[in-house]
Amino acid sequence: MARTRFTAMNCPAARALDEIGDWWTLLIVREALYGTSSFSGFQDKLGIARNILTDRLNALVENGVLERRQTKPETERYAYVLTDKGRDLLPILVALMQWADRWVFGRGAEPLRVLDARTRSPIEQIVVSSRDGRKLSINDLRFRPGPGADQTTLARFAAARAMRSKPDKN
Amino acid sequence: MARTRFTAMNCPAARALDEIGDWWTLLIVREALYGTSSFSGFQDKLGIARNILTDRLNALVENGVLERRQTKPETERYAYVLTDKGRDLLPILVALMQWADRWVFGRGAEPLRVLDARTRSPIEQIVVSSRDGRKLSINDLRFRPGPGADQTTLARFAAARAMRSKPDKN
Repeated sequence: MARTRFTAMNCPAARALDEIGDWWTLLIVREALYGTSSFSGFQDKLGIARNILTDRLNALVENGVLERRQTKPETERYAYVLTDKGRDLLPILVALMQWADRWVFGRGAEPLRVLDARTRSPIEQIVVSSRDGRKLSINDLRFRPGPGADQTTLARFAAARAMRSKPDKN
Repeated sequence: MARTRFTAMNCPAARALDEIGDWWTLLIVREALYGTSSFSGFQDKLGIARNILTDRLNALVENGVLERRQTKPETERYAYVLTDKGRDLLPILVALMQWADRWVFGRGAEPLRVLDARTRSPIEQIVVSSRDGRKLSINDLRFRPGPGADQTTLARFAAARAMRSKPDKN
């Protein structure tokens, strides 16, 4: 299965998708961010089949994105609550929403407004920025092997360097 | 297929995933951001089967994320180049990478370093922020129906309001 393939990859974007890239998984995280915590709550809001929901909730608990808490002792009722790791998915979710608002729905047709609770103004656009506050595009970035780079990653960077030093680069 | 189901959804995160949520699709976008543009380039870098690559490239062109350009007249060679819509996926990709660096690989084991080309320093962490520059967590946000909210979205907000006004809210 594709999941196994990507787990082996030394790529952080692929590994993140491996844990949350499934449509249902991200929609469950979205609901959890909105405050839903019970099995029936997720089921009602998402219209998702019980077996799929069980499967995705278990995977999210196993990956440490959700924590399962027994709500009442001696009952089988559980609440599914976001961990710090899960709450930290917020920028990804907001970035996805803003991208679709801009490029899929378009200005004036956004399904949702995300407001700053204190000022009731729209929140800021999510951007990639430098430490001194400049907005960065892809041309302003350089990728280098990190401390956890494996042989494949190192080989790719070496190949890219060799390519750049050729006079007739393609 | 799941794709059809979510296309109908009035949710920007789901719609964004609908266009780029497939693992291969996002890895192709990642390669395109790194500068890969030829079919054989994507094939070499990703180790992806020809038919899957053809399928995903066609979908990305159809969705306006990539543009297909004939590189030499009278040949069948094409370059696949990111459009503005495609380049605007950068914050999503960087947010995914930073999340996995933090929560999957961990400090000191990051496979890649993303640097600001001008200063050669690491880039800033991506955050959700207010227009006046405060970092916002989920508790600092309010979601409201937008101008493009459909009946389902409006009904959900109405139900959430009714729930909040009950004395014994669950």
